[in-house]
Amino acid sequence: MTQVSETNGVLTIGGAEVPALAKEFGTPLFIMDRGQIEENIRAYKSAMDSAYDGHGLVHYASKAFCTKEMCRIAKEEGIGLDVVSGGELYTALSVSFPPEHICFHGNNKSMEEMQYAISAGVGHIVADSEEELDILDSLMEGNTKTRILLRIKPGIEAHTHDFIQTGQEDSKFGVSLKSGDALRVLSKTYQNFEIKGVHCHIGSQIFEDEPFMVAADLMIKLMADVYEKTGRYMEDVNLGGGFGIRYTETDLPRPYHDAMLATISAVKKASEKYGVPYPFLIVEPGRSIVGEAGTTVYTVGTVKDIPGIRKYVSVDGGMADNPRFIMYDAEYNALLPERPEAAREEKVTICGRCCESGDILIRDILMPKVQRGDLLAVLSTGAYNYSMASHYNRLPKPAVIMVKDGEAKLCVRRETYEDLVRFDL
Amino acid sequence: MTQVSETNGVLTIGGAEVPALAKEFGTPLFIMDRGQIEENIRAYKSAMDSAYDGHGLVHYASKAFCTKEMCRIAKEEGIGLDVVSGGELYTALSVSFPPEHICFHGNNKSMEEMQYAISAGVGHIVADSEEELDILDSLMEGNTKTRILLRIKPGIEAHTHDFIQTGQEDSKFGVSLKSGDALRVLSKTYQNFEIKGVHCHIGSQIFEDEPFMVAADLMIKLMADVYEKTGRYMEDVNLGGGFGIRYTETDLPRPYHDAMLATISAVKKASEKYGVPYPFLIVEPGRSIVGEAGTTVYTVGTVKDIPGIRKYVSVDGGMADNPRFIMYDAEYNALLPERPEAAREEKVTICGRCCESGDILIRDILMPKVQRGDLLAVLSTGAYNYSMASHYNRLPKPAVIMVKDGEAKLCVRRETYEDLVRFDL
Repeated sequence: MTQVSETNGVLTIGGAEVPALAKEFGTPLFIMDRGQIEENIRAYKSAMDSAYDGHGLVHYASKAFCTKEMCRIAKEEGIGLDVVSGGELYTALSVSFPPEHICFHGNNKSMEEMQYAISAGVGHIVADSEEELDILDSLMEGNTKTRILLRIKPGIEAHTHDFIQTGQEDSKFGVSLKSGDALRVLSKTYQNFEIKGVHCHIGSQIFEDEPFMVAADLMIKLMADVYEKTGRYMEDVNLGGGFGIRYTETDLPRPYHDAMLATISAVKKASEKYGVPYPFLIVEPGRSIVGEAGTTVYTVGTVKDIPGIRKYVSVDGGMADNPRFIMYDAEYNALLPERPEAAREEKVTICGRCCESGDILIRDILMPKVQRGDLLAVLSTGAYNYSMASHYNRLPKPAVIMVKDGEAKLCVRRETYEDLVRFDL
Repeated sequence: MTQVSETNGVLTIGGAEVPALAKEFGTPLFIMDRGQIEENIRAYKSAMDSAYDGHGLVHYASKAFCTKEMCRIAKEEGIGLDVVSGGELYTALSVSFPPEHICFHGNNKSMEEMQYAISAGVGHIVADSEEELDILDSLMEGNTKTRILLRIKPGIEAHTHDFIQTGQEDSKFGVSLKSGDALRVLSKTYQNFEIKGVHCHIGSQIFEDEPFMVAADLMIKLMADVYEKTGRYMEDVNLGGGFGIRYTETDLPRPYHDAMLATISAVKKASEKYGVPYPFLIVEPGRSIVGEAGTTVYTVGTVKDIPGIRKYVSVDGGMADNPRFIMYDAEYNALLPERPEAAREEKVTICGRCCESGDILIRDILMPKVQRGDLLAVLSTGAYNYSMASHYNRLPKPAVIMVKDGEAKLCVRRETYEDLVRFDL
């Protein structure tokens, strides 16, 4: 959590002063608050343990931020992992993450990845299509460790406060519920496995409980329909992720513990309503575990005031470490670590150093007066920043540190120029 | 150039058959046609040599595609390089690129980068602001090799067929012409250098000559104004890049040689009009040197038909190797290397394998019937694809090969899973 030091008024993260961290590790720097990550994990896990008797597992969606150290944290906290590629699986296995608590996803897994996941003994593979089920059948002979789920297009889509219950059939992911395909495919028998359950993912940055409750209802009704049609109980339901986080003050997420409780309650209610046993429940928060725990610290360079138009504050990073503005018009908050409580008195646009006019981090934010050499922190950058970072303009990727109880630990070292040409021949 | 093999009807690039290249190097694979790159360079260079008596230099804008091998090609072809970071400069110097033909750009160069560029003896540094000129003055003592230019906001902006001659003051780059700032700053004297000229960059994907001609006129008039005010001739003019390329059949670029001739003619005309000597002319094509020379070859995986809605063809790459659709709604063309001339009979959407609904490469393109295991080539991916590639979803970056006269040379080797965690501690 970002706080203000009582002794000298500077920004602290995980009990360490940010200016000192910037001095030690350089900028741009990704600072992850390890305590906050653990707290977020526990918010979900404690709800699962207490309200669902532990008959479920929280899987961290590692695509949000996948590093060895993050996999270690998930392992130590006793949660599972959602991985979407051989590379994410490799990262998890490289820290001896228990494979039985890994779920492998993806709309287009390669044959090699499916073989890799199966031979590693992952707990779940979520098949994305009928075609993939057939391939898995050809690979699963003799495997008793991996449970196969099917990804369902639930016909609802939720983003922030936008919640559309019809449509959203237009997606590369999953098998349609509405068309009847889901029920048909789930009722099929395979030679080397039984489909153990269903998965759905309804969107991201969702702040309300209702979409999750509707999704739970739809999935459990589907599982009941399969039972009715085949006499076979589906055992597992994976409701994906999408729990919203606070990027700016207009974002008002529910406490994750409460969101989890609401989802659990919906799962129970639906199970009772449709007369099926409580399923094994998986949820996959990613952004909400790491997003707010991350802060990117930059050094300010050129400050350019264009009278009557805009004031540009350039920092020593940009779209190469955070492409979310250029991709999604994402919004962030920022502050000055050396004087976090200074009055915000002028509107500026914080831009990056890449040769691209779209290289903006925050457009039109009220900030304290800022000048060359100041540190500038962009908040809530823990998710989809490091994981989406590029080497555009041949910029080395920043270092990532984890901070807890005032102690900083280097988690990913800063790249050097030499690293940039490492694979060049 | 992509062609169709006369012997067996498959796609060839640089005289090599694409299916064989895919087999040898795997997919996704960036294939660069070295002959086409050389041809594109020569189109600009020959115009400069013949119509401007070589009193100028073509600088390849390396941000479009910066690898050691590409810097070697630029060096062998006798052109210069435009670099925008220490990393790009390092790449160039690592193949002994002559520093006097390197121009260093950027809206927010770090102090270390400016020192690096100066000590390397680069030919030009383009200062982006008055502030940066002051910093350079403090660093340039004793340096006689590096010429300082100033980036000007010309007040025109051109993109494709959109050409706006007013406004575009709202940019993080350069010093305003319109406000009089440019003339004021250019007239200043510095202790350790004289400003040798001006730079401007008016946009990208420009298909007409007129914007370049207007830019040339504005810059040379500004240089004449500086002479009038100070009695000092500006010697260099750098008109940036922006020459359009063909992504789809609706793009109709002029031959680069002709575009260069038109620009040269505008520079001469303006010099005569304003009574100043012909300046040393630099242009900085990037995309037009490498864009059409690049092809990304994927393998098709899941093909999902959603009746009445859309057919999704998933490939084994996506936004991690080509984020231009998700960033800019960029358009591309594609074909099937194994049957490039097959009739295009169904509309599909080509999407990637990342866990992101925006992970699309081409929306709604008419393609021949395609199925799992087919190779699929996306064309004109030589610029801003490899250079913008990320490791999103922990996908290793593809290999890059250069092909010429039927011979393929590995230029950047494919990353491994181990490479992904190389910097993790």
